Amino acid sequence: MGAARARTSPFLHNTPIMKSERIDKIVGVPVLFKCEHLQKTGSFKVRGALNSAILAKEQGAKGVIAHSSGNHGQALAWSAQKIGIPCTIVVPKNAPQSKIDGMKEYNADLVFCDASVISRETVCAEQAEKLQYYFVNPYDCASMINGHASIALEILEQAGENIDSIFLSVGGGGFASSVAYLVGKLRPDIEVFLVEPSKKQLSNLLENGVPCPMDTLDTMADGVRVAHVGTLCEPILKEFCTGKIIGVTEDEIKEGLKLVWTRMKQRIEPSAALAFAGVLYHKPKHVKNPLVILCGGNVDVDYVI
Amino acid sequence: MGAARARTSPFLHNTPIMKSERIDKIVGVPVLFKCEHLQKTGSFKVRGALNSAILAKEQGAKGVIAHSSGNHGQALAWSAQKIGIPCTIVVPKNAPQSKIDGMKEYNADLVFCDASVISRETVCAEQAEKLQYYFVNPYDCASMINGHASIALEILEQAGENIDSIFLSVGGGGFASSVAYLVGKLRPDIEVFLVEPSKKQLSNLLENGVPCPMDTLDTMADGVRVAHVGTLCEPILKEFCTGKIIGVTEDEIKEGLKLVWTRMKQRIEPSAALAFAGVLYHKPKHVKNPLVILCGGNVDVDYVI
Repeated sequence: MGAARARTSPFLHNTPIMKSERIDKIVGVPVLFKCEHLQKTGSFKVRGALNSAILAKEQGAKGVIAHSSGNHGQALAWSAQKIGIPCTIVVPKNAPQSKIDGMKEYNADLVFCDASVISRETVCAEQAEKLQYYFVNPYDCASMINGHASIALEILEQAGENIDSIFLSVGGGGFASSVAYLVGKLRPDIEVFLVEPSKKQLSNLLENGVPCPMDTLDTMADGVRVAHVGTLCEPILKEFCTGKIIGVTEDEIKEGLKLVWTRMKQRIEPSAALAFAGVLYHKPKHVKNPLVILCGGNVDVDYVI
Repeated sequence: MGAARARTSPFLHNTPIMKSERIDKIVGVPVLFKCEHLQKTGSFKVRGALNSAILAKEQGAKGVIAHSSGNHGQALAWSAQKIGIPCTIVVPKNAPQSKIDGMKEYNADLVFCDASVISRETVCAEQAEKLQYYFVNPYDCASMINGHASIALEILEQAGENIDSIFLSVGGGGFASSVAYLVGKLRPDIEVFLVEPSKKQLSNLLENGVPCPMDTLDTMADGVRVAHVGTLCEPILKEFCTGKIIGVTEDEIKEGLKLVWTRMKQRIEPSAALAFAGVLYHKPKHVKNPLVILCGGNVDVDYVI
């Protein structure tokens, strides 16, 4: 994980931490926000994507390919452009326009598919075969997980002495595994809570082995719509995050989003508000110094809460 | 101006400077942004308002009063609450809801009036007389102008060696006078450009003495709708800013707003985008290192560009 950081950090931001006096009052304890929506390409995904693209290039890949509703696609496209290799992204038709525009801007070739996970995976596998590009799985992938870990190292350096917990939004589980593993190893006194749209039922997977019955989740948090958790991620999350899953409603995500937009003036995306909603509505009583990771800020300009 | 800074800075933020690689590419030169939308109460106005409220209290005022469509009102209400004196704000009926909510949150007493400047001034004068409160003029006021100057000092400290110009949005002229005067005295090599909705025609006032024929401007930049320029401000602007007025269209403000929202993820208000639109569309060719002041971020949560 340290090697991945050394490989990627010259190209990336060490994103700032912000706070808001008003939000502290509303929550009742001081809340720190790691502003990863200010990262290159507007989300944390670039940490893992750049690490993956550099490794793929070193191993002689002709190009890289992924399926993505947006943030992973933008991140991989930007990374490929930065290191000078071609990139194709398979994009579901219901992806937000701003994210599609971002991928185009970084010169990726786009191939559209249906919104289901099956369609995404099938079309992507076909294209990878045809182009002979290296497939970068958005979350179930060691180079992504290792790449993401730089955010946990930054958080410990910036605020390790001032926090007792970290709240982050969980989708496929790559980012969650990365942060939970590293913090669990280096600072087991800091709890890592995973916040999900409640229908995902991640607790049922970790505690009882029952995966989410749905293929995709119907949530405004478009970055975490994939209901499945990666097979690499599941054992890590089971070890470090059992009992630390928080489910939130769509209305709670909306209120979180409103507060960050109006109070902090930060135009985060709904997937980032998800993590804050966990603190706002479901913070365990013993948590006194939470840090929320605002994971991304790619939201259409005409998006209305 | 140094005394005002010493008086107010313990309560206020030294706001950060941001930049965006993508915006640099679009503009063609590196652009720095002074993030005053991250100031307490979400705008620069609190610098002058707090200075004014402290001085009013020292002089034995029972309370403070102002008329405001929002940012000045929020700033004065917050300042009065901070130092423990009552505050009344006269608010035009067309003020944005988020700004009205902000004034209420800081416990100001609100009195509503019509949108015209005449109505605002008349109702405010009546209330001031009745309550015996000290009237804090939003722009034509020495304590406001002196208070605002702390932003210019911060800019010179943070970026004085890296900029050749400062672009700011101009309304009544208090903020513009403050920055233009201080920069003009301390660093006459740095040009201060004032950006206005083009109907305001500030050049015609400074060069030919012809004031804007309108009472209020019909612009999305609600923070600069007052067309009149303060009598204290006019001679300062004439001395330091003649030939440095830039008029922009509503469409140009919109494009500036879109770029800051989507690229920088900063939820600024239209009045702040005004200054950036000046750089984006009308930057003089000799300007190579502009700094834009993003003056505020108080915009309704359901506001759509």
